[in-house]
Amino acid sequence: MKMDEISKQYRDFIEEYLKKWFAQFHDEPQRVLYEAMEYSLLGGGKRIRAILALEFCRLCCGDWQKVAPFAAAIEMIHAYSLIHDDLPAMDNDDYRRGKLTNHKVYGEGMAILAGDALLSDAFSCAAAAELPGKDVTFAIQILAGNIGSLGMVGGQVLDILSEERVLTEQEVLDIQTRKTGALINASCALGVIAGGGTEKQLQAACGFAGALGLAFQIRDDMLDVIGTQEEMGKGVGTDATKNTFVRLYGLEKCEELVQKYTNVAIEQLQVFDDTEYLISLANSLTARKV
Amino acid sequence: MKMDEISKQYRDFIEEYLKKWFAQFHDEPQRVLYEAMEYSLLGGGKRIRAILALEFCRLCCGDWQKVAPFAAAIEMIHAYSLIHDDLPAMDNDDYRRGKLTNHKVYGEGMAILAGDALLSDAFSCAAAAELPGKDVTFAIQILAGNIGSLGMVGGQVLDILSEERVLTEQEVLDIQTRKTGALINASCALGVIAGGGTEKQLQAACGFAGALGLAFQIRDDMLDVIGTQEEMGKGVGTDATKNTFVRLYGLEKCEELVQKYTNVAIEQLQVFDDTEYLISLANSLTARKV
Repeated sequence: MKMDEISKQYRDFIEEYLKKWFAQFHDEPQRVLYEAMEYSLLGGGKRIRAILALEFCRLCCGDWQKVAPFAAAIEMIHAYSLIHDDLPAMDNDDYRRGKLTNHKVYGEGMAILAGDALLSDAFSCAAAAELPGKDVTFAIQILAGNIGSLGMVGGQVLDILSEERVLTEQEVLDIQTRKTGALINASCALGVIAGGGTEKQLQAACGFAGALGLAFQIRDDMLDVIGTQEEMGKGVGTDATKNTFVRLYGLEKCEELVQKYTNVAIEQLQVFDDTEYLISLANSLTARKV
Repeated sequence: MKMDEISKQYRDFIEEYLKKWFAQFHDEPQRVLYEAMEYSLLGGGKRIRAILALEFCRLCCGDWQKVAPFAAAIEMIHAYSLIHDDLPAMDNDDYRRGKLTNHKVYGEGMAILAGDALLSDAFSCAAAAELPGKDVTFAIQILAGNIGSLGMVGGQVLDILSEERVLTEQEVLDIQTRKTGALINASCALGVIAGGGTEKQLQAACGFAGALGLAFQIRDDMLDVIGTQEEMGKGVGTDATKNTFVRLYGLEKCEELVQKYTNVAIEQLQVFDDTEYLISLANSLTARKV
């Protein structure tokens, strides 16, 4: 199969899994809560995090469906983080992926609750995984650690705090590693844990995730500037109040760094066999145009 | 020891445990996030949920400290729920327990993130419990199930949806069981699980929690009305837009129901020995004047 076909297979699988997970609640009276949750969780999204979990699980044991409850939990957490990020008290965004944001459709109170429910239900889903108890516990520790005060939420706070000043390279790396890197790290790690991988494979997956997360984020910052230039005719540097990688390094250096980190990521994969798909995926993610 | 001394011992223990848990993060740069989390989590609160977990653990195995990571997680979740409930988009409260609410001190964005971090970190803390993996996994399933879309958040949504209409008795019971009962249920259940209790003891603890939760909530509704009468000179019934137990039954019947549910709760305890403290606690909670 070609890369796009494999990605589609994974994406369709996780979409179906999430739909089935929520179908069990369809007779509950708090119907509008589920509608708000599904609005942001289902229908769209590249599912990169779920795909990474599924693929690392496959690389370890062949049976990628074993990680499904963890992959679904990660997608729920990703959806919760987007809902809360878009709130008026946070980024105050009206649109995401061309659709109205959650609070624009369901109101602020319901959006906060939909996020809270997705975050809580993610742990219900993960804890229900049919794997040895110690593996589930370990996976939940990794997951919770990566999204809490030390991880994703911590990165979000650091990002808010840094808005009015120029950061050092180390600070930008730290924020991005927490803000977007942490959940990618959890995705890869949970794939290995569910697949019964070795300690060495776990370390390699985390090394891959760390480098890929940076390459991904630098590309994101570049696309922001390139997109802005093309759409608005604005020059580079007008985004100068934001602590992006482009501001730190400039576009050209960023291009180099994306390539460097992508290569670092791919080098980590030597402890696995059959990594053709994952290498193609890494290259396509970090070379993407949109 | 007298009841108050035992309660104080438990309360001091969990307070210390929570302080130690957060002390490990004191060198992190996102200091303000931890301040916001600690503002709502530490210093105050009756710690009823933690006490129930600790006492049920003691009843099952004697060694109540085994449940500490779960009890701490429950208190973190309780704190997160109060922070988010007080937000302008929710109840819009400026004060709680005589102190400014979290968003009044730290701003709305930080309050949302402090709640998110407490909820996430609760699962880090719970998953780190030094207990058999299958017990930790089971406890996390119970905990997450009780606080998510089917439990606490679901109850909150049903409560918001019901604001403009008169509910049936069954609907009020359903909302309160989810909104306040679910976390009390998790507290008692996790105490039994950590204590290695039997299936029968687990069922008894949940039966106790369900009845105690109702008695507790009915007393809460009564105090609201009695407090209002004394402070504001308002008569009973001015709260008529709220779906409280007092509105459903009137004050006198509520008094009877509190007694009834407290008795039901206490009857469940027969499968345990040495329940003197828990019986006193249940009686004092449901007979409380403030």
